[in-house]
Amino acid sequence: MKIRLERSSGVPLYQQIEQIIKEKISQGEWPPGTKIPSQRKLADIFEVNRSTVTAALDELTAQGLLEGKRGGGTIVTNRTWSGLTEWPVLDWTGYVRSGIHRPNSLTIQEINRQEFKKDIIRLGTGELAPELLPYQQMKKILQDAEAGKLMLGYEEPKGNRYTREVLAAHLKEKGIHVSPDSILIVSGALQALQLISIGLLKRKAAVLTEKPSYLYSLHIFQSMEMRLYGLPLDERGLDPAVISACKKQHGADLLYTIPSFHNPTGFQMAEDRRKELIQVSKRLSLPIIEDDAYGDLWLDMPPPSPLKALDQDGNVLYVGTLSKTVSPGLRIGWVAGPEPVIDRLADIKMQTDYGSSSLSQWAAAKWISSGLYAENLKLIRNELKKRRDTALRCLEAYFGGLARWEKPRGGFYIWVTFLKPLAISALFEKALKKNILINPGTLYDKEAKQSIRLSYSYASRSDLENGIRIVAQLARELM
Amino acid sequence: MKIRLERSSGVPLYQQIEQIIKEKISQGEWPPGTKIPSQRKLADIFEVNRSTVTAALDELTAQGLLEGKRGGGTIVTNRTWSGLTEWPVLDWTGYVRSGIHRPNSLTIQEINRQEFKKDIIRLGTGELAPELLPYQQMKKILQDAEAGKLMLGYEEPKGNRYTREVLAAHLKEKGIHVSPDSILIVSGALQALQLISIGLLKRKAAVLTEKPSYLYSLHIFQSMEMRLYGLPLDERGLDPAVISACKKQHGADLLYTIPSFHNPTGFQMAEDRRKELIQVSKRLSLPIIEDDAYGDLWLDMPPPSPLKALDQDGNVLYVGTLSKTVSPGLRIGWVAGPEPVIDRLADIKMQTDYGSSSLSQWAAAKWISSGLYAENLKLIRNELKKRRDTALRCLEAYFGGLARWEKPRGGFYIWVTFLKPLAISALFEKALKKNILINPGTLYDKEAKQSIRLSYSYASRSDLENGIRIVAQLARELM
Repeated sequence: MKIRLERSSGVPLYQQIEQIIKEKISQGEWPPGTKIPSQRKLADIFEVNRSTVTAALDELTAQGLLEGKRGGGTIVTNRTWSGLTEWPVLDWTGYVRSGIHRPNSLTIQEINRQEFKKDIIRLGTGELAPELLPYQQMKKILQDAEAGKLMLGYEEPKGNRYTREVLAAHLKEKGIHVSPDSILIVSGALQALQLISIGLLKRKAAVLTEKPSYLYSLHIFQSMEMRLYGLPLDERGLDPAVISACKKQHGADLLYTIPSFHNPTGFQMAEDRRKELIQVSKRLSLPIIEDDAYGDLWLDMPPPSPLKALDQDGNVLYVGTLSKTVSPGLRIGWVAGPEPVIDRLADIKMQTDYGSSSLSQWAAAKWISSGLYAENLKLIRNELKKRRDTALRCLEAYFGGLARWEKPRGGFYIWVTFLKPLAISALFEKALKKNILINPGTLYDKEAKQSIRLSYSYASRSDLENGIRIVAQLARELM
Repeated sequence: MKIRLERSSGVPLYQQIEQIIKEKISQGEWPPGTKIPSQRKLADIFEVNRSTVTAALDELTAQGLLEGKRGGGTIVTNRTWSGLTEWPVLDWTGYVRSGIHRPNSLTIQEINRQEFKKDIIRLGTGELAPELLPYQQMKKILQDAEAGKLMLGYEEPKGNRYTREVLAAHLKEKGIHVSPDSILIVSGALQALQLISIGLLKRKAAVLTEKPSYLYSLHIFQSMEMRLYGLPLDERGLDPAVISACKKQHGADLLYTIPSFHNPTGFQMAEDRRKELIQVSKRLSLPIIEDDAYGDLWLDMPPPSPLKALDQDGNVLYVGTLSKTVSPGLRIGWVAGPEPVIDRLADIKMQTDYGSSSLSQWAAAKWISSGLYAENLKLIRNELKKRRDTALRCLEAYFGGLARWEKPRGGFYIWVTFLKPLAISALFEKALKKNILINPGTLYDKEAKQSIRLSYSYASRSDLENGIRIVAQLARELM
């Protein structure tokens, strides 16, 4: 973010900055206790030298509005100039700290911020590069909008019926037979997990998942006091044989899995394990959440059938999304499962956000039913395959002898594990200084201190090459 | 919903129904324990006589797939024909019942379902009628889409920057001075409340609000074990004088208020009370959530300034939305407040749905910045005014001597209180039988057993006339 100063106004820049900060404080945008951005960052925001920022902050400190904090940083003081100090000032910091939902890990918060910096090489980002997003085709869909078919009102609790019919047909192609009544449209796969956490589980419930898992990078279940137990994982996916023992030890109320092109490892669960998992789910009465966000993004050959296609008992809640194959910005995903469960999740969705954007639902239905989904997928697979092969070639070239990895058969990710210990957080920091973002393995398993999740979906092929080369070099320095 | 049978196939209709239900059971869409729709409803779904449904259900019962439930209704049995009964069947019902988030009240669930029935007169619906939604203009906005300006990727945690800049300018016109950094884009005002509940409060926190209040019809705070305390309300809004005593008695961590055109009463908080409320908030260090969903929908003259415009200390979190003024389907709202609070809410939003639809954010920015917001608002106010006046005229004509109400100066609602006790749930049921939906006062205050929330935003003027006439007649019969 940038704030433009009036460079020709005659008012010194440091005074303009002082004024802007003063307004933020006096308007309550930066209430007492707020930690203001660092001097470096302020210099960046105002596009001035750091000394100009220092002059402004010194003024404000002298006026008693700011104070240096022990341990670094500058905070807004419990200001005295408003003449209202007979009452203690509202302590928002206490509210922010005591809320029920856990904050994102600091690393993820940092990643979320840095991703929007220019010229940064994003080697960890789990999304399609902007040049792979179908802007032209989506524009065409919007231009073909007929006013009579647009949807601007509230939708049915489960989502627009026509969109659900389109999704039911789409799922049928994967061997999943559900009627529109057993489908809930959600704002992306992540929201499905959020609804499941507050809709289907008790506090203290036990959730099993692969370890490492994307699920560990979120705090959806943990914030509701649920316990996560990690199951071992290899290139053939999680091994259903261990579930029974895990259930005996910790209990097991739900199992979350990404069988196809797992996040963060890229692994694909083998067909025999899928069949076994369904049997285990029956035997243990264990519900499964199948996250199939990446299933359509196979690069060499299609993965085995989804678990849901093997499930004759309604034990599987199937979660899909357009975020990885079309556009994350649409925020359209779906859950398919037993109707009473879908009814329950729909009811909670109505109570928390009244349904997903009907504009997005409309565009999603158009996208799939027009055949654009299938058509565009071919292009994306083709491009992802090139990027994956580039990434693998660069890994061979620069990471040989340094780390090990498996060739992913689809999805976005390669799980790279260094052969010797190194300080993964230092690697993250050093890479960031070189304008490269990586996702440390510890986001997905706090014991995965020697791994990183490398994504080939976002960076261009030349960025992949440069990024991988530099990260290898930094890693060698750290070992 | 309708399911079309093959009427010329030669297979008897009851057998086709039997087959469809059997598939739903065998595919796990209707797992054991599922309560299937009533015979009346099934007859409606399949468009057959009830006797045909009965024949199908009898067959399925004879096969051991269905059984009658004591107290009425038919459920799917713990089926024996799959040959897999050595294991207990997964009990989804237990999951559905034990989830943390409370279900919607049965009345609201019923309303949510009935709203999509054809030819129903909706006297309680809190949304603009379809004919008031700007389909033509929105179509034009979509058609003008330039591929280069569309947004299909993930947005910044607080939402698209340009959209936030547009919103900052929009808020400035209301006397609210915040920078884009202090604004979070959410999927409607309701989601703001959801994020606040899990982001800023502890379990057992005390939330104050007007009584009656829209907040009582949701379970957002209660599901997180928070306590709601109702404050008395009159035509001049809630009286800030009582807050201090309430805080002493129960504690007070937050106050939620709808100062302009309150839901469900339509009341408008007077200017002096607004000023006093801000003072009380300071004195008691009490954060305020100001829900301004209806503020722009004044019909006679603009309401006093929002609380946020009076707030120099950052005590107020201001919530706005396009749902009531433009299109609920867009699912675009916003929260403005102190930056550290907005940062926290944005972080939780990222963890629960990764942001709002960027297509909707884009359309919202276009809508407001192009001047269409202001232009369309005039038309809507004009139309709402006509509908309000029709509703008031009909109330005079049919409810005279039967109930009392205040003329609302804006928004959607008239709070109608019967002068004598009557069974409000019976009135709801009787009206529903006449194809009229009303919202009983008990949704908003369980003690408001003599009130209904009448909405003039949805029903046409002739539907208002007919609906009000019939409801008055039913009420007289019940008294």
